[in-house]
Amino acid sequence: MTEPTLGNNIVTQVGIIVRDIETKARAWSEILGLPMPNIIITDTVDKTKAEYNGKPTKARAKLAFFHMGQLDVELIEPIDGPSTWKDQLDQHGDSLHHIAFEIKDMQEKVAYLDGVAQLGTVLELLENDGNDD
Amino acid sequence: MTEPTLGNNIVTQVGIIVRDIETKARAWSEILGLPMPNIIITDTVDKTKAEYNGKPTKARAKLAFFHMGQLDVELIEPIDGPSTWKDQLDQHGDSLHHIAFEIKDMQEKVAYLDGVAQLGTVLELLENDGNDD
Repeated sequence: MTEPTLGNNIVTQVGIIVRDIETKARAWSEILGLPMPNIIITDTVDKTKAEYNGKPTKARAKLAFFHMGQLDVELIEPIDGPSTWKDQLDQHGDSLHHIAFEIKDMQEKVAYLDGVAQLGTVLELLENDGNDD
Repeated sequence: MTEPTLGNNIVTQVGIIVRDIETKARAWSEILGLPMPNIIITDTVDKTKAEYNGKPTKARAKLAFFHMGQLDVELIEPIDGPSTWKDQLDQHGDSLHHIAFEIKDMQEKVAYLDGVAQLGTVLELLENDGNDD
């Protein structure tokens, strides 16, 4: 066994790509018996420095979170420019996108790790700072 | 808000469809720093009563579980006959398949709920009996 790459094995989030976040969030709130969450929009590219294929992209996303114990369900509706979220929506429709682990002392606040070829899924690495994003 | 359908909001499992469970399980064991799990094979159709499109199917699956706090990662390699697992592998390749909730007093031990259209994912409902399957 090689040295583990992750600092812990606690899954804190499951992300789902959806075409219509308002409808999907309402369905989740009903099946879970939780209030309809606020739908937030990610910052613009001047703040996020988002890139797609190595170039800046105007891509943003609408997000909604359901908090359930150690784990959140995150709904993601890609909007505006091209993104890996949009690619998945175009290729696979509404679908599970990632599972997230909390990592301490990350240089970036959030990072995706494309683990599909090796692990069968994208991983999201979240800085352990108590925030949702 | 309507009456909630689920009895609780604790996600106990994330399922991933893979083409080669031995390779993927080894990669997961390395990134998580956990021992290589046993790979089990689901029972034959005479025990499982598995159906596909309303007819009995010989479909089985190889399964591997990684236990991490409240949640397991379940790897699923479909084998033998046709199944919804096999459909997903053929259509989407290695990919996240379901998230599971524990449900008390289910008539069946395990049930999938095709929530893709409504929720963006398949849900698996597991009887709360302390077993993995």
